[in-house]
Amino acid sequence: MNEVQAAAARCREAARALASLSSETKDAVLRTLAASIRNAAADVLAANARDLHTSKASGLADAKLKRLELSQASLGQMAAGIEQVADMPDPVGRVTRDEPVPSGLRVQKVRMPLGVIAMIYEARPGVTVDAFSLCFKAGNACLLKGGREAAATNDALLALIRDALRAHGCPESAVELVTTSDRDQIRAMLTLTESIDLVIPRGGEALIRFVHEHARVPTIQHFHGVCHVYVDRAADLDTALEIVATGKTSAPATCNATECALIHADVADRFVPMLAERAARDGFELRGDASAAALADTIVPAKPDDFGHEFLDSVLAVAVVGSVDAACTHIARYGSDHTEAIVSEDAAACDRFVAGVGSSCVLVNASTRFNDGFQLGLGAEIGISTSRIHAYGPMGLEELTIERYVVTGSGQTR
Amino acid sequence: MNEVQAAAARCREAARALASLSSETKDAVLRTLAASIRNAAADVLAANARDLHTSKASGLADAKLKRLELSQASLGQMAAGIEQVADMPDPVGRVTRDEPVPSGLRVQKVRMPLGVIAMIYEARPGVTVDAFSLCFKAGNACLLKGGREAAATNDALLALIRDALRAHGCPESAVELVTTSDRDQIRAMLTLTESIDLVIPRGGEALIRFVHEHARVPTIQHFHGVCHVYVDRAADLDTALEIVATGKTSAPATCNATECALIHADVADRFVPMLAERAARDGFELRGDASAAALADTIVPAKPDDFGHEFLDSVLAVAVVGSVDAACTHIARYGSDHTEAIVSEDAAACDRFVAGVGSSCVLVNASTRFNDGFQLGLGAEIGISTSRIHAYGPMGLEELTIERYVVTGSGQTR
Repeated sequence: MNEVQAAAARCREAARALASLSSETKDAVLRTLAASIRNAAADVLAANARDLHTSKASGLADAKLKRLELSQASLGQMAAGIEQVADMPDPVGRVTRDEPVPSGLRVQKVRMPLGVIAMIYEARPGVTVDAFSLCFKAGNACLLKGGREAAATNDALLALIRDALRAHGCPESAVELVTTSDRDQIRAMLTLTESIDLVIPRGGEALIRFVHEHARVPTIQHFHGVCHVYVDRAADLDTALEIVATGKTSAPATCNATECALIHADVADRFVPMLAERAARDGFELRGDASAAALADTIVPAKPDDFGHEFLDSVLAVAVVGSVDAACTHIARYGSDHTEAIVSEDAAACDRFVAGVGSSCVLVNASTRFNDGFQLGLGAEIGISTSRIHAYGPMGLEELTIERYVVTGSGQTR
Repeated sequence: MNEVQAAAARCREAARALASLSSETKDAVLRTLAASIRNAAADVLAANARDLHTSKASGLADAKLKRLELSQASLGQMAAGIEQVADMPDPVGRVTRDEPVPSGLRVQKVRMPLGVIAMIYEARPGVTVDAFSLCFKAGNACLLKGGREAAATNDALLALIRDALRAHGCPESAVELVTTSDRDQIRAMLTLTESIDLVIPRGGEALIRFVHEHARVPTIQHFHGVCHVYVDRAADLDTALEIVATGKTSAPATCNATECALIHADVADRFVPMLAERAARDGFELRGDASAAALADTIVPAKPDDFGHEFLDSVLAVAVVGSVDAACTHIARYGSDHTEAIVSEDAAACDRFVAGVGSSCVLVNASTRFNDGFQLGLGAEIGISTSRIHAYGPMGLEELTIERYVVTGSGQTR
């Protein structure tokens, strides 16, 4: 048994105990952990400094260094995030159905933990703590495989997590951290169907494709977010301008950033110049189809693969469409099932758009940036799913559980 | 593009239209289909006779011939089953959450179809009609791959389904039947992640393992059902005897049949002889561990692999355990996460058992045979899942849909 198999087997064993932990115990572990992250901030930051030093020396890109770097402030946010999870209601044991059937049996559906959840992610130490706190609150053990650049930071955080578990009599193997970066071992981990119930990859598309390609264990993920805003003929154009522009500028590198604006032909000659002016002011580039590019000099003619592209940058594609249906057809062809929005004052057009796109989150008169577990009231999210199975959209605590049947009778037989 | 890829692509295209069909249209298609199965029974039976003739000639086993064979009565049940699905409420569009969040957005979760569901099954023509009616009612297209022994029967049924679809203006590719038995094509089908959302295999364990092994598309299945009944020290022993004996005898070859009885040591010397007498009367064999075998002459000493075994036959394993927890430990080791039951008048013991086993269905004082979509009030089932993802236990119409987010604002941005 190699390192990964042994860790997964310990998680499976721990998961049996975690399934029946009381909410009070779980919340106490989380509050202890939050306090110790605040108290031991200096140790965690020292470990993080070592990781940063090694990573700089080996030439890690600036954007990745930024994700790896912790600060007093980010540790404070981490601790607050854990306390927020502790404050949330426990999904385990929640009864979602309770009714008699003709045989006299009482049929209940009751939420239970999934079991063992593996997270595979890159050098973002915040994910280590987020993943543990959400998985644990939902009664799951978690097997974490973080980026090797964050090894010292993750070890420091893991020590605090395990101290908190021990302090409340919970099994330490509620969390296991795998440090191998041996591709064969990772690949083998993805086939441990006996000890892992779900794999959630988080990171760049290459990582996610690798996981999806090799997993025999169920996986939930999104590959990328190509989010569209459709500006209808009946849109309030000032509202549309705010939604489109901030959808791009507020956080261009996130998966819920707006990547493409589809403009109804009837308002294109008014709206496209407004958008071009705003883009010039806010510093993002527009790449338009022929109709859009004809309406403003500053619009770069789009190449075919600018549609369906996740720029993760200050670039927005623009196309002119003839109808709600044409917008939906464009999205069916180029979209990623992540997030789409319509801006319109016409309720019938909004309904048609909502019915016409199949994405995990469809917004009416609001920014695509709201597709986020916190913004949608889930409290926190462990990821966003664009697989139409188990969960579609942001995954919170509830999505880390499954409903099973509990049936009570008085001697019924068939 | 081969036959399978082309069929899957047509399903994907059809699925877009199916997602917004009205409940009325869907129910009308189903009622037309039920009527035409009754009216065209002679044609279907003639096709079935051809399949039976060919299969007998090629030496198909009797049990498989029996599953392939249709009759006037079984076609009547098939039609009634379709009408029952038509009578059920439409899950599509059902709002499962509706609440405002602090930004003023109204956040709804709304059920939508999964999209395209592939079913891979053996020579059971009833599955063709069941799968279509459930998938279609939930707004999904389905790609069917049935056993080649049922080819003529499936063609006859498919013609009736497509007539019914056309009669109500629905796309014929709401169902596609793949007739290839080329293993490479089937394997390729299991990787069509762009056009298939879910694969459900139904049949013997070898088929299910093949699908699970090769699928890149999400799959939901159960490999087998090793169902346990635990007879507690506080059981009413007459009730326990009925539950254990009928759990084995009422349909020994089904996945929810009882395969193992675990008897609390305090009642073993009374209960085991009762069970041995009943087994002799009802004609099933008992294979007991040393403690059980010591209590009745007719009990065959169990070999180690008699525990955790799905006999699918008139054989029941029996073991004596010291406590509720010991029963749970036995089940954790040997069970299949399918179905377990406790017989006890002690509410605390029942609670402990329910908390201590993680199976998809846990029954208190009732037979394991009740783990069935119809018996649990789902109306019908497309299969039973023992994967702790998406659905755990019987899958009905609701489990053929997914909840997505529909968010309504008034110009909110971030």
